[in-house]
Amino acid sequence: MKLKRGLVQVYTGNGKGKTTAAWGQAMRASGQGLRVAIIQFFKGKGSGEVKIAKKLNLKVHSFCPVHPFFGGKKKRLEKECQEGLTFAKKTIMSKKYDLIILDEINIALRDRLIEINEVLDLIKKKPKGVELILTGRGAPKKIIETANLVTEMREINHPYKKGIKGRRGIEY
Amino acid sequence: MKLKRGLVQVYTGNGKGKTTAAWGQAMRASGQGLRVAIIQFFKGKGSGEVKIAKKLNLKVHSFCPVHPFFGGKKKRLEKECQEGLTFAKKTIMSKKYDLIILDEINIALRDRLIEINEVLDLIKKKPKGVELILTGRGAPKKIIETANLVTEMREINHPYKKGIKGRRGIEY
Repeated sequence: MKLKRGLVQVYTGNGKGKTTAAWGQAMRASGQGLRVAIIQFFKGKGSGEVKIAKKLNLKVHSFCPVHPFFGGKKKRLEKECQEGLTFAKKTIMSKKYDLIILDEINIALRDRLIEINEVLDLIKKKPKGVELILTGRGAPKKIIETANLVTEMREINHPYKKGIKGRRGIEY
Repeated sequence: MKLKRGLVQVYTGNGKGKTTAAWGQAMRASGQGLRVAIIQFFKGKGSGEVKIAKKLNLKVHSFCPVHPFFGGKKKRLEKECQEGLTFAKKTIMSKKYDLIILDEINIALRDRLIEINEVLDLIKKKPKGVELILTGRGAPKKIIETANLVTEMREINHPYKKGIKGRRGIEY
């Protein structure tokens, strides 16, 4: 492993910048020769970051493409998120990566689509040199307590923002 | 310009993730074909993100490499920050870029190394299609009020974090 000690970072809160910070971290790590894997939950295809990831040879794996917010059946969401978690475990324990990002996993935890104890257990058992990043709003208290470094992205409300959503290259 | 309407985003606060979110945004924008320029204040060389930027053909320009915290002389800091701001103006007005990141400019504003009115004026006059991102802790109130989208990165204190600093690939 290339890191002496890998930490557990959490990016949560209702503000912009959680996933983007994780991707920035992936880019930085990759620039320094660390091996990076990104495991996405609830993300569709075609985002700018995934396009660039290919160029940078970053591994991206996506699970459970339908966001709970948009309705998906709970049984199916549970099954697909569980597949993502199982894959995450395998990836983390493989020691093939220095930085592993579990993008939006906090949403899966918040909505009880996966078991929090499984994630806490994974954090406990991860190889020492693996840096883990968990993103998504609504990180459960136990995750926050267990992580080494937690940032809450807090949106400072602003009227001018309203009505502007989903611009290609900025929001996705 | 490729964006119909470019906004002004601010990432501030004492938590981790401000610069990394801006870089993640640069990566995403680049993946979608937007033209990106990054103007850094107070940053040394050799960061992972700058190494990757070269691969991605992102333009990076650095000004005032000594951080005020490490004690450069004020006159010199002012001069170098002003050069950065002048360069930023030229870059923004050139219409050659869709996304322009002014990394750590909030620090220059907080420490009065540049004139806030010049920055407010620049925000007012920027071409409509330019998205601007300002990062750094201590964003002045007037900047926050003027921006369209402000995220405060709030550090949630955590004892395990102490004593771990500056890991290559993670912090730089």
